[in-house]
Amino acid sequence: MSENRIVIIGGTACGPKTAARTRRCDPKAKITMIEQSAHLSTATCGLPYYISGVINKEEELLKIREEFFEKVMKVEIMTNTRALAIDRPAGEISVQTNGSDGVSKLKYDKLVLATGSSPIVPRLEGVQLKGIHTLSNIDDANTIKAKASELDVKSVVIVGAGLIGMEMAESFAVKGLDVTVIEALDWVLPTLLDFEVAAKVEKHLRNRGVKLLFGQPASGFIGDSDGMVRKVIAGKAEIDAEMVLLSIGAKPNVELARDAGLALGATGGIAVNQYLQTSDPNIYAGGDCVENTNRVTGKKVLVPMGSTANKHGRIIGTNLTGGSDTFPGVLGTAVVKIFDYNVARVGLSESQAREAGYDVVTAIVSDYEHASYYPDGKELMVKLVAEKPGGRILGGQAMGPGEVAKRVDVLATALAFRATAEDLANLNLAYAPPFSNAMDPLHKAANVIRNKISECAVALNPMEARHVLKTDEDAIFLDVRSTGEWDSCRIEAPQARLLPLGELRSKLDSLPKNAEIIITCQTSTRAYQAQRILISEGFENVKFLDGGIVAWPYKVAVYKPYQCW
Amino acid sequence: MSENRIVIIGGTACGPKTAARTRRCDPKAKITMIEQSAHLSTATCGLPYYISGVINKEEELLKIREEFFEKVMKVEIMTNTRALAIDRPAGEISVQTNGSDGVSKLKYDKLVLATGSSPIVPRLEGVQLKGIHTLSNIDDANTIKAKASELDVKSVVIVGAGLIGMEMAESFAVKGLDVTVIEALDWVLPTLLDFEVAAKVEKHLRNRGVKLLFGQPASGFIGDSDGMVRKVIAGKAEIDAEMVLLSIGAKPNVELARDAGLALGATGGIAVNQYLQTSDPNIYAGGDCVENTNRVTGKKVLVPMGSTANKHGRIIGTNLTGGSDTFPGVLGTAVVKIFDYNVARVGLSESQAREAGYDVVTAIVSDYEHASYYPDGKELMVKLVAEKPGGRILGGQAMGPGEVAKRVDVLATALAFRATAEDLANLNLAYAPPFSNAMDPLHKAANVIRNKISECAVALNPMEARHVLKTDEDAIFLDVRSTGEWDSCRIEAPQARLLPLGELRSKLDSLPKNAEIIITCQTSTRAYQAQRILISEGFENVKFLDGGIVAWPYKVAVYKPYQCW
Repeated sequence: MSENRIVIIGGTACGPKTAARTRRCDPKAKITMIEQSAHLSTATCGLPYYISGVINKEEELLKIREEFFEKVMKVEIMTNTRALAIDRPAGEISVQTNGSDGVSKLKYDKLVLATGSSPIVPRLEGVQLKGIHTLSNIDDANTIKAKASELDVKSVVIVGAGLIGMEMAESFAVKGLDVTVIEALDWVLPTLLDFEVAAKVEKHLRNRGVKLLFGQPASGFIGDSDGMVRKVIAGKAEIDAEMVLLSIGAKPNVELARDAGLALGATGGIAVNQYLQTSDPNIYAGGDCVENTNRVTGKKVLVPMGSTANKHGRIIGTNLTGGSDTFPGVLGTAVVKIFDYNVARVGLSESQAREAGYDVVTAIVSDYEHASYYPDGKELMVKLVAEKPGGRILGGQAMGPGEVAKRVDVLATALAFRATAEDLANLNLAYAPPFSNAMDPLHKAANVIRNKISECAVALNPMEARHVLKTDEDAIFLDVRSTGEWDSCRIEAPQARLLPLGELRSKLDSLPKNAEIIITCQTSTRAYQAQRILISEGFENVKFLDGGIVAWPYKVAVYKPYQCW
Repeated sequence: MSENRIVIIGGTACGPKTAARTRRCDPKAKITMIEQSAHLSTATCGLPYYISGVINKEEELLKIREEFFEKVMKVEIMTNTRALAIDRPAGEISVQTNGSDGVSKLKYDKLVLATGSSPIVPRLEGVQLKGIHTLSNIDDANTIKAKASELDVKSVVIVGAGLIGMEMAESFAVKGLDVTVIEALDWVLPTLLDFEVAAKVEKHLRNRGVKLLFGQPASGFIGDSDGMVRKVIAGKAEIDAEMVLLSIGAKPNVELARDAGLALGATGGIAVNQYLQTSDPNIYAGGDCVENTNRVTGKKVLVPMGSTANKHGRIIGTNLTGGSDTFPGVLGTAVVKIFDYNVARVGLSESQAREAGYDVVTAIVSDYEHASYYPDGKELMVKLVAEKPGGRILGGQAMGPGEVAKRVDVLATALAFRATAEDLANLNLAYAPPFSNAMDPLHKAANVIRNKISECAVALNPMEARHVLKTDEDAIFLDVRSTGEWDSCRIEAPQARLLPLGELRSKLDSLPKNAEIIITCQTSTRAYQAQRILISEGFENVKFLDGGIVAWPYKVAVYKPYQCW
């Protein structure tokens, strides 16, 4: 291996990690890393926080310098340099440095493509106007930051309510801008969350002054005589915008690979095997430019993520130097801070699971992040998606001001091992009052899944319950909370009726045995209990509202706000 | 099942959960729950926070009332009632209510022992003195709280540095008392943590004014003429104490079971099978009174924990009513808040793993809880214990002001599935700058384990490194941080020498090739890199200090405190 010439194209995440791992495993390899921008290892995930000012200095995002790679890692660095083409038979690539006319050649024994991804720019009328931006590097961020700090830019439209759209909605709002988010699909984070989880995020965004427009793709942009964007067209609406951020997704940078005849996958990403080898065994690829295997479905997916890029880099570095390491795939795990809410998800959403053909069962649990008697506990909501009848967990979502990343990381770990609801229910998670409940929301959700599979629990999700309330005027919508809770907030419907759980057994006569009864409470714990009572007393058509009032995605009538988050 | 008479002895955690689950599964069962105290479902885990005043009212810990069980769950409740004996042939138990002379009999078809555990009271001279307490129920807590609030009680000695001892050290210190903790073993949380992790907890406790005395069991108590405790004897020391808390552990309450001829395990807990059935198939047992299976070793253990008791209760309730649910065992997971530090652990510590005969490899990683460039990140340290050569994870510990519960919960999940370091390294954990790093400390620790197993990384733990520093004056203790860091804090030793990583390759000549070299830096990331460089340059005896200066359990010379937590 002493003459191993390794060329890495791309210096953001996968590339530098590959370089470092390669050097640690092979002190003699000749390693060259090419980066088209001026910077290595840019912490691009931090850009929204740099724009908002949470991170003060550009340098914070550019901590690893060329000097480090050259002096410590003995890696030859070529920044401001673009790879133009791969000549596979010759084992060389042609590169060009910015500002220079000359194209030079670089020989490789092994080549690594860590070319990343680029923001998708839709081909729309006016998309070339000034003031329309994407965000993928520090230069973008500096441009946007400068504009967002100008006094004359007051309104911004974000096109796309994905992760970056949500982070930037907060970022712009924090800077005092008037923010509108346009999303072609029907709710925020539409490829990550199900409707009822997204609906609570949406409420939070609206409470913080962010305007949201769903079901309308941006269809064009209107500018002024200076060529500056002034309006965004979405359906029939024209929304004022002094700046626009396009955040409708990223596409893998595969031109080099494609032009060199390397296989691409159906997703459009570079196809790699488990060793992260492309169709040419001398060429590896990792990071945003490759497609990954979804560990739940086994299907190929595009999930660009800095954390995955780092894992790829280590594996490629190992394999470049005689090792044999494999990457098992991804779970689409994501977490995002949206003002005071934490939002996270993993695996398949309910809609994705149904689309993939699973026989789906779900649970929604609202709870405090720690023991309810320990002060300052923040709320969170967990949605679990599992498969009938075995109870295998397919995915999960968690959301709220409380600690949700922990729950989703536990689920990410459980999903990697194809855990069932029974496995989850028996996890020996760390318990102490300042940190958790004796029964964590995950335990509770797992048990709800088990109760539903055994038909001990029968629930309607909010959408189903709302349909019943809209179509069956004879149904009973039984709220089993206390009078005080009822007075504080409730779901209003003509069929709504209060009967506190403690009085249920003594007032069974007030309920018709053959009516359709939907029971609700704050979180659905009491409603489930009430269902068990009614079923044991011969009521035949009794269901409870999953997640209770806390998880109700529609209007809740609030009379004393503190009780409903 | 319509005549199923179920009697549950014990009303704190497992008992009430059993009652509730039983009722949900069997509407007709006759369920009776006996509790020797006046309260059901006492949240005993909250007692230290009730004493400190973090939780204000007793009622917060006593939220579930008899009325709930009677009216909603249709469970007959007998509080202030003690079970005296089990007559298995007759299928009945004898019970006695406080203040009454009469003994009555209760018939059962199925009996559940949820008798809990009691604090161990050592048989020591003077242990009966007034002012010496244990803490296991609300009455204990009220007594201690009242005394700790008296102006004339200024000093308290805690005997035993386990979980309750640590929680109470904080609780008493918060109330302004002078606190001394005596521990017979050599460090805090000795059955939970390894020395180097405990050492940092110890520093934190001492910084908060808590006095600690290790390696000395309390051997007796000295009182005054009123029979009030005044001193605790430990070795040659006599420590002033106006109050004493005994927190040396809990023993399972097995008298009823033993007297009835039920099998006990070698641990002293009630023996149960995976269905939580005792040696009598009509008698189930759960919660603190039973022994559990450690999921790592397969051995029986006593790990009383409210979270386990709740899981037991659900399983017993299922099995009492025709189901067939099993409990897979525990992992000894624990978390505790100690002032501003969070401390958690799972599985086997290094010493436990060695004792159990595993070929052990460990990793120590210090890091921020989230991306270093995102502000207000708090530090944490993770220690991972794994088995050679396969890399199976055996346990983990995490500690620091940062978010440690998340990491230990991920490990608890991974351990349940016998995860390897490779599995852990590839977990798709949720990543975004406010929540985590692209490479989580767990990923890093898993990769350190892999590097050590492949002998790419060779480290000394702090104890080994200190031994070298004390015994080999020709060794070189090479600090590869920057000059600024060196000036700020360092491990002082005659062999210590500064050579920043960036200068290492150019100054190799300054190092003798045959010397024993121990490399250190802040967290050991750079030291590992330096080791790879030196080994590649032909140095033969090069190791790095695991965990770096941050994890150094001994004295660190601090000149600018902000750099070392």
